[in-house]
Amino acid sequence: MKPLLKEIQHNKHLWLLVFVPVVFAAKELEHDAHTLLFALSVLAIVPLAALLSHATESVAAKTGDAVGGLLNATLGNLTELVIALTALRAGQYVLVKASLAGAIVTNTLFMLGASLLLGGLEYHVQEYNRISARMQAGLLFLATVALLIPSALSQADSVAGAAFTQKLSLGLSVLLTVAYGLGLFFSLKTHPELFASAESGEARHAPWPMGLAVATLAGVTVLVALVSEIFVESVQKAAETLGMTPAFVGFIVVALVGAAAEMASAFAGARKNRLDLSVGIALGSASQIALFVAPVLVLMSYLIGPTPMDLQFWPGAVVMMFIATMTAALVTNSGRSAWFVGVLLLMVYAIFAMTLYLLPPRVA
Amino acid sequence: MKPLLKEIQHNKHLWLLVFVPVVFAAKELEHDAHTLLFALSVLAIVPLAALLSHATESVAAKTGDAVGGLLNATLGNLTELVIALTALRAGQYVLVKASLAGAIVTNTLFMLGASLLLGGLEYHVQEYNRISARMQAGLLFLATVALLIPSALSQADSVAGAAFTQKLSLGLSVLLTVAYGLGLFFSLKTHPELFASAESGEARHAPWPMGLAVATLAGVTVLVALVSEIFVESVQKAAETLGMTPAFVGFIVVALVGAAAEMASAFAGARKNRLDLSVGIALGSASQIALFVAPVLVLMSYLIGPTPMDLQFWPGAVVMMFIATMTAALVTNSGRSAWFVGVLLLMVYAIFAMTLYLLPPRVA
Amino acid sequence: MKPLLKEIQHNKHLWLLVFVPVVFAAKELEHDAHTLLFALSVLAIVPLAALLSHATESVAAKTGDAVGGLLNATLGNLTELVIALTALRAGQYVLVKASLAGAIVTNTLFMLGASLLLGGLEYHVQEYNRISARMQAGLLFLATVALLIPSALSQADSVAGAAFTQKLSLGLSVLLTVAYGLGLFFSLKTHPELFASAESGEARHAPWPMGLAVATLAGVTVLVALVSEIFVESVQKAAETLGMTPAFVGFIVVALVGAAAEMASAFAGARKNRLDLSVGIALGSASQIALFVAPVLVLMSYLIGPTPMDLQFWPGAVVMMFIATMTAALVTNSGRSAWFVGVLLLMVYAIFAMTLYLLPPRVA
Repeated sequence: MKPLLKEIQHNKHLWLLVFVPVVFAAKELEHDAHTLLFALSVLAIVPLAALLSHATESVAAKTGDAVGGLLNATLGNLTELVIALTALRAGQYVLVKASLAGAIVTNTLFMLGASLLLGGLEYHVQEYNRISARMQAGLLFLATVALLIPSALSQADSVAGAAFTQKLSLGLSVLLTVAYGLGLFFSLKTHPELFASAESGEARHAPWPMGLAVATLAGVTVLVALVSEIFVESVQKAAETLGMTPAFVGFIVVALVGAAAEMASAFAGARKNRLDLSVGIALGSASQIALFVAPVLVLMSYLIGPTPMDLQFWPGAVVMMFIATMTAALVTNSGRSAWFVGVLLLMVYAIFAMTLYLLPPRVA
Repeated sequence: MKPLLKEIQHNKHLWLLVFVPVVFAAKELEHDAHTLLFALSVLAIVPLAALLSHATESVAAKTGDAVGGLLNATLGNLTELVIALTALRAGQYVLVKASLAGAIVTNTLFMLGASLLLGGLEYHVQEYNRISARMQAGLLFLATVALLIPSALSQADSVAGAAFTQKLSLGLSVLLTVAYGLGLFFSLKTHPELFASAESGEARHAPWPMGLAVATLAGVTVLVALVSEIFVESVQKAAETLGMTPAFVGFIVVALVGAAAEMASAFAGARKNRLDLSVGIALGSASQIALFVAPVLVLMSYLIGPTPMDLQFWPGAVVMMFIATMTAALVTNSGRSAWFVGVLLLMVYAIFAMTLYLLPPRVA
Repeated sequence: MKPLLKEIQHNKHLWLLVFVPVVFAAKELEHDAHTLLFALSVLAIVPLAALLSHATESVAAKTGDAVGGLLNATLGNLTELVIALTALRAGQYVLVKASLAGAIVTNTLFMLGASLLLGGLEYHVQEYNRISARMQAGLLFLATVALLIPSALSQADSVAGAAFTQKLSLGLSVLLTVAYGLGLFFSLKTHPELFASAESGEARHAPWPMGLAVATLAGVTVLVALVSEIFVESVQKAAETLGMTPAFVGFIVVALVGAAAEMASAFAGARKNRLDLSVGIALGSASQIALFVAPVLVLMSYLIGPTPMDLQFWPGAVVMMFIATMTAALVTNSGRSAWFVGVLLLMVYAIFAMTLYLLPPRVA
């Protein structure tokens, strides 16, 4: 416990942790004050994310960046999974799909782009393990194809009905889960040496002991999940009050807050010239949502949803996911980065965000 | 003849050659037993494909892998050409187009993917000549653009009528044939050194004498063509009996069996760590179908078809060809491979196959 | 002045400069002889382009190829800007958009392709700075995404009305201009060393003095602009007489003549084995039109146009711009070139040109 308390003393924005009990209290007392709850939950998620970042770094210091990044992505995406499961139980499939697509686009463009920009502002040129990045981009590409095909074909061929889409979605979910498992087997078992990090001459913080780090990872993730639930309940109504379209909320706001924990880690990695950690978190998180979270939700919808969910997305979301994947594949091809590469990714994200912000309501 | 007989003694599945006369006999006696003829013709094609593979390797051993691969693709695609010409004469343009698109997708994703997987299971990391692979991917990209434009524009602009599509298809066919010829000139005449194989320290089988190898190549190709014809006649009805959709039959079954000969060679190359041979056959075969077989069929349709054939494909087929090409371009970019790269390609193929299998009838 | 006169004596096709006064005189005397004016203006643009090419090379010799290429693109694109502003004032938005899309496609495919082909015919293999090329391709990709989104979404979602498209186009224009500015800052200020040219052992012509070169650049650019205006007025009617569709004229003819000045420079660079100059001009020019000229025109339309112009293009144009960008990104990935790479690019361009030539009138 001691290193944890020391961390809180050292790290100023960890004092924001007081908002965690505050948001739970406020929820009990005033559960209709949506805009207040929205603000409080965002304030509570930020320090939790920072804590998570430090714990993950401690683990990563002992296991290598690629595995650490994977671990981080797995725990970070628990947030998205919990959010989506809540919405799933309520049958809000449009929101579930929007947040899935939004998480993929946000991780691929915003998290990666901001990491490369932040890193590039401190280092002239940065290098990272491009084999690892290419593997993640490849998995993401596979998942995008799987999510694209049902939409593309039911566009192209209006005869193909709902039964077809449903059966196809179920099959694709199984395929994607298998691909995800084989990918883990490849990167952790048969070819781990390909995922070793590029050398970074940076001295690191004294890492926490393994036990504390893992316990913090687990405990803080649960807190993030609980706070996120309050966030999700309040965000839709708060957004209306603040004049945002549902499409913008689902894709951008939910995705940004849901990924706050991973972003803190990715940005910290980039600023310490450990770009492998950042790229691993950003692309790993995106491909994990596409290959693991999305299929799990389809399969779970048979158990806990009012009706089965399919993988047919709004065509605009498919276009955005495909472009985000292509952008990531092109950008990570070289294994080198400078600040402008980050700007390029952020600009593509800004184009999407602006489009969704202006889009007349009706689509989410 | 002696090395040929020795090969048959050595190589156990060459005893399947007895099915070659059997299928011809069965065809004479029971030409309505479609499911039987279907099974017999598949059994007969397998050993012929193996024989073709050995003969091609013998030639390749003397001419360099790239030229050998090209030669193999040329002869292997005779099968596809004969099948398509038969269907063309009967005016079955939907089947012709489905088998063309299916052959491109199958060679690019299944043949390449299975080669990389089989090779990767035996060797930790394999290398191949990426300049050669990039050239093939470039040709394939060009062909895909040519096949995509008529469909994309007649989608985008419904005024563009049948006369436009027909004239455009004729012009594109001439363009593609010219590009194919220039590509051969480039790879065989002006820049052959770019297509030299990466070193492979593997000892090879004693190759057959050139004359026997070439004679076997020619003779067996003719047998494959004859058996394939029986296969095509029976496959559609057999598929119905077995509960497959026409789209699945055209794209997947015909393409897989039609490419069996090349696959045997490509897989054998991969397992001997001669990945240049495998990549050359897979991508070379795909680009040859797109740049040579498809245009020839359009031009031939003016001579032997009931009406001229155009190059306007079903939109779903266009999407699949485009994705297959993008996948190949991204994957072959690095010139290195491990087993999981093969899995990625096979997964994309499985997504397509599953979609076509579930697609309600009406489109082929 | 002396080096300028010496150049005219040396360089035979500079005698074509006599057509500059001739075309102005003809315009005064016979302003309805469209086909004559069309022919005269093309004849007048050619020598002006050659002069511009020599002046740019003189400047480039002193500033490095990347900056020289940028300078060239900036001045060369003045032509396109003047043409488009003229059409804008007249409210001919369809022509403006066609010429923008055509300029992007023509620079990316024809100018780059012909440069690589011409260079490849003289040198076996050529190398160029692929980091610089990748940066240009990245900017172009960003711009293509920006131009694609309004069309893709209003396709996908027919509810999104004209007001949405207009607001989005305005926002995108601001974003693109910012990206363009940041790109210049990156390549000229913070990371100029990345854009240094690959070594070329070629001896160069004695360059002109800086003052004369800059003055020639400026003066000749103005002349090109004036002649281009006559060209634009006459081209539409001349094209009808010659049997061309409006789509073909806007995309191909206007774009080819409008880019004649830059092409002369790009081709000359390629033949002197200075491929960095050629690639810089071709891709730089394309990305500048997309990131700078197009947004400026949208913003200007609020000041001088009858109504505001948006960025929603004809879907066929979007497909062509996207394919052109993908092709450039794939091709420039390696930083090496041989003649067949040029052929591939030219073939894609020929596919587009043929399609537009055959397309029934109605779309421009």
